[in-house]
Amino acid sequence: MRKTTIGVIGNASRPGVVLPAALLEAAEETGREIAEHGAVLVTGGTGGVMEAAARGAQERDGLSVGFLPQADHAHANPHLDLAFPTGMGTMRNLLTARCCDALIMIGGGVGTLNELTIAYDVGTPVIALRGSGGWSDRIVHALVDGRWLDERRVAELEFAGSPAAAVRLALAASTRPRRTGGLTAHTGHAGD
Amino acid sequence: MRKTTIGVIGNASRPGVVLPAALLEAAEETGREIAEHGAVLVTGGTGGVMEAAARGAQERDGLSVGFLPQADHAHANPHLDLAFPTGMGTMRNLLTARCCDALIMIGGGVGTLNELTIAYDVGTPVIALRGSGGWSDRIVHALVDGRWLDERRVAELEFAGSPAAAVRLALAASTRPRRTGGLTAHTGHAGD
Amino acid sequence: MRKTTIGVIGNASRPGVVLPAALLEAAEETGREIAEHGAVLVTGGTGGVMEAAARGAQERDGLSVGFLPQADHAHANPHLDLAFPTGMGTMRNLLTARCCDALIMIGGGVGTLNELTIAYDVGTPVIALRGSGGWSDRIVHALVDGRWLDERRVAELEFAGSPAAAVRLALAASTRPRRTGGLTAHTGHAGD
Amino acid sequence: MRKTTIGVIGNASRPGVVLPAALLEAAEETGREIAEHGAVLVTGGTGGVMEAAARGAQERDGLSVGFLPQADHAHANPHLDLAFPTGMGTMRNLLTARCCDALIMIGGGVGTLNELTIAYDVGTPVIALRGSGGWSDRIVHALVDGRWLDERRVAELEFAGSPAAAVRLALAASTRPRRTGGLTAHTGHAGD
Repeated sequence: MRKTTIGVIGNASRPGVVLPAALLEAAEETGREIAEHGAVLVTGGTGGVMEAAARGAQERDGLSVGFLPQADHAHANPHLDLAFPTGMGTMRNLLTARCCDALIMIGGGVGTLNELTIAYDVGTPVIALRGSGGWSDRIVHALVDGRWLDERRVAELEFAGSPAAAVRLALAASTRPRRTGGLTAHTGHAGD
Repeated sequence: MRKTTIGVIGNASRPGVVLPAALLEAAEETGREIAEHGAVLVTGGTGGVMEAAARGAQERDGLSVGFLPQADHAHANPHLDLAFPTGMGTMRNLLTARCCDALIMIGGGVGTLNELTIAYDVGTPVIALRGSGGWSDRIVHALVDGRWLDERRVAELEFAGSPAAAVRLALAASTRPRRTGGLTAHTGHAGD
Repeated sequence: MRKTTIGVIGNASRPGVVLPAALLEAAEETGREIAEHGAVLVTGGTGGVMEAAARGAQERDGLSVGFLPQADHAHANPHLDLAFPTGMGTMRNLLTARCCDALIMIGGGVGTLNELTIAYDVGTPVIALRGSGGWSDRIVHALVDGRWLDERRVAELEFAGSPAAAVRLALAASTRPRRTGGLTAHTGHAGD
Repeated sequence: MRKTTIGVIGNASRPGVVLPAALLEAAEETGREIAEHGAVLVTGGTGGVMEAAARGAQERDGLSVGFLPQADHAHANPHLDLAFPTGMGTMRNLLTARCCDALIMIGGGVGTLNELTIAYDVGTPVIALRGSGGWSDRIVHALVDGRWLDERRVAELEFAGSPAAAVRLALAASTRPRRTGGLTAHTGHAGD
């Protein structure tokens, strides 16, 4: 039977930038919760929030999958059971955003916002972790009616106050039928 | 000699949705201005803002290029000199966003926001048309210091009050060296 | 620890086309062998050779992963533990071809040949099953010195006479360092 | 009115490899012929066959378009009117292969074969230049009935004995309705 997949998106590590300990702890706790509920964790496979979530999932014997931007494994974090070196660069963002049953967003720079727009385009539900900084906190000021990424109102952005609550909402959302807005390989209407 | 390319991004037309006349008029005027300055217009090639801009460029004998989501020409608007049927669906957003010397953003739903994130990732300058609605107006509430898409401060989002001013800023921006943040086919650092 | 991934590429099912029973049996046996050796099976996730291999892997309690062309699960075969709806259409071919430690090629139409060219571009080792028909048998007539896809001699195409031999060769190849020829997200030299 | 686009695919230049003068002369002559017939030349934008064809097109005041693998213009050849830095790496092969009205194949390594498979998948007509070496000459030994890339017989591979004949055949083919086999953004059937 097909396993439920929950993606975690958020800040990557960068040379010279120290990510807040609370951000990484929230990501690790999210990874643990995903594994404890029997779901598979999917991330972009590199450092920062992605690595912390992967560590958490493996601490609870969960399966951890990563879609790497590079074409080899040199930059993969050490907590991946399945590491896919896509060679797609930041285009690999679409894989986590489209391919999961739901996403949890923790902090986040422009790459995370990019994933959020892709998720909305195909109807992947997203739960943002309130108080985690970055786009998870700033986005609310720019939403339509505080909930939607545009006037089409395709998929509501939900917010959670803790990793446990985020995972609970993500699992609930993963079972609901989707309302899609996008134009991918099997639809023909405008998705711009 | 290589021609300067200016992309126009913004709302697509949709069945059952009437786009504001002022939005389309602004797009058409932007297309005219781009052509009058001798630059090439690049769009996503379908309806709405894209079609209006293409019409404007052709009114002034400019070259109009469109990157279509579909794999054929059936959905192309009639104002394209070069129509490229990519078959990439909404992934084709990356072509306009990455391949132009500068972008002008007019109104916009989630697809436009997606293009904005891609542009920022590779350092393509973007000028938003103030008062045109959608993400062009909402984004300002969620920027870092009212100008940047994330803390890396890669490329400043500029705003213009008219199509003529937007084209002037876009042409100026297109000559400046870029500060890139992204991870594409020729860089190896993290770009998340 | 990262798991070894072996991809199986070959003919998809098509309306009105009956694939040879021997082809499907070879694919199923290949899936069984992959699982028995503790490796993860990766396919394009739809019918024909992909479905047969996935069935075989699940018969031996192996993990079966599929990268779907569609953006939803409607066309997934029923033997996938992880089904990733990429929405990339046939562009998803690059995922199996780039992301596995080695590939086994069974029969195959033009999509399989496409995957072979992508694998060669990044140095993924490929084992063709001799006697399985399609490109697995025809390719030999067009190789450079019967072994290479072009004059660069990047990665030798190997041939095996049985599913068991193919899996043995694939596992051996998966441990060798790669000689890459391609231009992906972390290289800058020409890869045409 | 939309312009007719003819793509030229073939060997890239590589450090340490000298391409045959006859190969480059054939490419340049092909570029000239395309321009003289009023069509737009599309290539991968880098060196070797692509650069020679672009030079030929510009010699006859034709429009020359290049889809670059890199995200900037540093590796573009100097004969492009429109240079699109896709940042897609070798994935950019799909743009020339899908987006032209017809393709001409001259020599060619594995990247050219990759483009041929993509063209066949969406039904883009391809004319191979006989005697130009590489895959243009080797492919015939592996075709179904000497003409088709697989048993579906989607689009016949044609051969020409000179650049002028190749361009004539390409222009004729560009006006015929296509029989497509692939799975892209507007079809839902299996395309593997």
